[in-house]
Amino acid sequence: MRDSQTNPAWDVLLDLSGPGPRHERLTRALRAVIRDGTLGESATLPPSRALAVDLGFSRWVVTQAYEQLIAEGYLAARTGSSTVVRWSAAGAGPAKPDRPMNAQAGIDLAPGLPDLRHFPRERWADAVREVLANAPHGEFGYPIPGGHPRLRAVLADYLRRCRGAVVDDVRIAFGVTDAFGRVCRALHSAGITRVAAEEPGWLKLREVATRAGLDVVGVPVDQDGLRVDEIPSGVRAVLVTPAHQFPTGTVLSPARRAGLLGWARDVDGLIIEDDYDAEFRYDRRPVGTVQGMDPARVALLGSVSKTLSPALGLGWYAVPPQWTDLVEPTPSPPALDQLAFATFLERGAYARHLRAARRRYRARRDALVTALGPLPLSGVAAGLHLVLDLREDAEAAAVVRRAAARGLRVSDLDDYRATPSGPGLVLGYGNLADGSVGTAARLLREAIGEEASRT
Amino acid sequence: MRDSQTNPAWDVLLDLSGPGPRHERLTRALRAVIRDGTLGESATLPPSRALAVDLGFSRWVVTQAYEQLIAEGYLAARTGSSTVVRWSAAGAGPAKPDRPMNAQAGIDLAPGLPDLRHFPRERWADAVREVLANAPHGEFGYPIPGGHPRLRAVLADYLRRCRGAVVDDVRIAFGVTDAFGRVCRALHSAGITRVAAEEPGWLKLREVATRAGLDVVGVPVDQDGLRVDEIPSGVRAVLVTPAHQFPTGTVLSPARRAGLLGWARDVDGLIIEDDYDAEFRYDRRPVGTVQGMDPARVALLGSVSKTLSPALGLGWYAVPPQWTDLVEPTPSPPALDQLAFATFLERGAYARHLRAARRRYRARRDALVTALGPLPLSGVAAGLHLVLDLREDAEAAAVVRRAAARGLRVSDLDDYRATPSGPGLVLGYGNLADGSVGTAARLLREAIGEEASRT
Repeated sequence: MRDSQTNPAWDVLLDLSGPGPRHERLTRALRAVIRDGTLGESATLPPSRALAVDLGFSRWVVTQAYEQLIAEGYLAARTGSSTVVRWSAAGAGPAKPDRPMNAQAGIDLAPGLPDLRHFPRERWADAVREVLANAPHGEFGYPIPGGHPRLRAVLADYLRRCRGAVVDDVRIAFGVTDAFGRVCRALHSAGITRVAAEEPGWLKLREVATRAGLDVVGVPVDQDGLRVDEIPSGVRAVLVTPAHQFPTGTVLSPARRAGLLGWARDVDGLIIEDDYDAEFRYDRRPVGTVQGMDPARVALLGSVSKTLSPALGLGWYAVPPQWTDLVEPTPSPPALDQLAFATFLERGAYARHLRAARRRYRARRDALVTALGPLPLSGVAAGLHLVLDLREDAEAAAVVRRAAARGLRVSDLDDYRATPSGPGLVLGYGNLADGSVGTAARLLREAIGEEASRT
Repeated sequence: MRDSQTNPAWDVLLDLSGPGPRHERLTRALRAVIRDGTLGESATLPPSRALAVDLGFSRWVVTQAYEQLIAEGYLAARTGSSTVVRWSAAGAGPAKPDRPMNAQAGIDLAPGLPDLRHFPRERWADAVREVLANAPHGEFGYPIPGGHPRLRAVLADYLRRCRGAVVDDVRIAFGVTDAFGRVCRALHSAGITRVAAEEPGWLKLREVATRAGLDVVGVPVDQDGLRVDEIPSGVRAVLVTPAHQFPTGTVLSPARRAGLLGWARDVDGLIIEDDYDAEFRYDRRPVGTVQGMDPARVALLGSVSKTLSPALGLGWYAVPPQWTDLVEPTPSPPALDQLAFATFLERGAYARHLRAARRRYRARRDALVTALGPLPLSGVAAGLHLVLDLREDAEAAAVVRRAAARGLRVSDLDDYRATPSGPGLVLGYGNLADGSVGTAARLLREAIGEEASRT
């Protein structure tokens, strides 16, 4: 392990015993060696990949533990260097928590965030003010299981008009992660114990499925999206991102859509459609949902996390009628937030925001593609990220480190795969400042060039 | 069964098989007989107590199912009559969901709600506006696990100053139910499988513990609060409401507090303190938390549900350091809501609101006590409810029905006990309109008198 040679023997140092999932045990173990002074202030931790290899864990486990300890103030992610201890056993009591990631200076191309600079602050404040001025007193009571009827109605209308969905019963959750967790628990209670998921894909949702007691089976993705023919027999549930696959950026082809629905009918299965950034298509109109093609076979999940902000904690799900009774309708998000979003939708503010955001992302994507040309980029003109394929002999993790040394955060494609494959980077431009596109491209070119000259 | 004689044989009619907890199976079974037309529109359902006896379930199970189906629009709670079917199989598609309970006209003395008429709408809107105007862009990203550092700091300060707590690490949850669920799962992961709870008590929290895999052991309450000496040996965790026991309204006496802490040290146990309406004491200053007396032995839970509104979905927990690592810090409530509450606290708006609310509740309680005198009321001058003891030969459920027939909703004390005991009513005045106090007292007297003349 090139990077951990100078570090302690982590597998010996860390006590990973005790209850809980791996990332929690690792968090505890790291916190313990910081608290007892084994790792003093300013000590450098190994890169997440190196530590993952040392411990035999997935890298996701390590990054979760690091981010947790950053949030708690024990660690800090330093621009241009690795993760370091920022807590001193000599200090008075536990450190104050700090912002994870966002506190980091420099340019962040980690995927998963929309443009936080353009959150529609004034229009959202207007919606909240209207709710607070006009809502009947009863609205300040306990939230209604399944979500507020007004938001459910307005949102169903939006999904029918804008996403081609066939829904008359949409329910409100805290986000896609929460909604998917509820669906997974429903699958489990119905005796379905395996779920297929795209490989590569969003590993956090896999973790959610695992926590619900399901086994997750990776199914490869090619240029037409999920390889439906590769879903193992016996599997009766599959999680897909048809509109814009994460992270490869492909769109599920019409033939594959038909094949997927045929599969679901053949096995009496459930397709779980994560419609996660479908609103952002730049070259043509967004592709409608698979759910609209056969609502009896598809559970549709969505949220405002990629369209407005993850800070709102609002998502939704619409499941086929035969699943309705199995999916927990509680807890419901705060009623005032639900009513604010309903008002925002009713006033057309959501549609206006999406139109403006689409223009902005399209321009930014074009600028980034131009600035990075002729590097090999993939993914259709959609969403909030691109994939950059590296030369076969390049080591993506090394490029990530070299970029970090320049103050640029990018993600290793392997972070979204259960098993490593051809080297690549995921570049999220959703929250990239327009003025930083050129700098980001230059720093990334340097990091790639330096890596290429090394190999 | 007096009340179900005219109804079908429910235990035969309802198919309670299938997965899930009892209240979910009952919900499904009732929905099925409504959907297939077995129960037509306007059909009357038996009172929850009668159906519970018929099915051998607790009444909580039945009320949960009824409320769920009311929320879904299949049932309606009619003022002055029982629960009725409001869905017709001939209607187009599933019924639109409706408000549960709150939709009911008349006077509602069910406990659990603060005064929704006096939610500080303008000051809350001001706090939201300030957050939206001034928060750095990064605040619109994903919520930080464990809660926003700013709210955590302000809230810890509030709990130290106003609740005598010794906390430097308070974490944010969606409410007390959510926080208690996290603590229960932590207990379970630490190998603790039983938790003691006050009898009578808030049955919803018992359900939460059960769902987390714990066995709940009821421990009686007398005029000094929890009978610490009755905690069975082998039990190492206990849920208590020391400041104002729900529903009896007693305060845990100083001797019992000492005894409880002694118990916790002896068995190396955890006291879980639900500080649920501690801010509202009318005859003296609120009693400080037990947590403040030995923070190494007590987990403190609280929320704004009884002080501001359950619609905000904000609660918190502070656990002893040895438990910190075991309690899940995610998911976190929406960041904007957390920041709005932090702002509300920082500006002193929370303290002002509590002062005004205390005056209002005190006056209302005095008015209700006067209007009901000389009926035997119990509970110290605190909180948002009273207990009315009925004559030993009275049937509380019958009084509840007779009151309902007059448009007055009150609760049977048995609703909060696992095993029925001396007849009593719980009267919640938190959300009672001041102008309705006299009417409520008159209707209740009539209902009690009618029941007394019958027996």
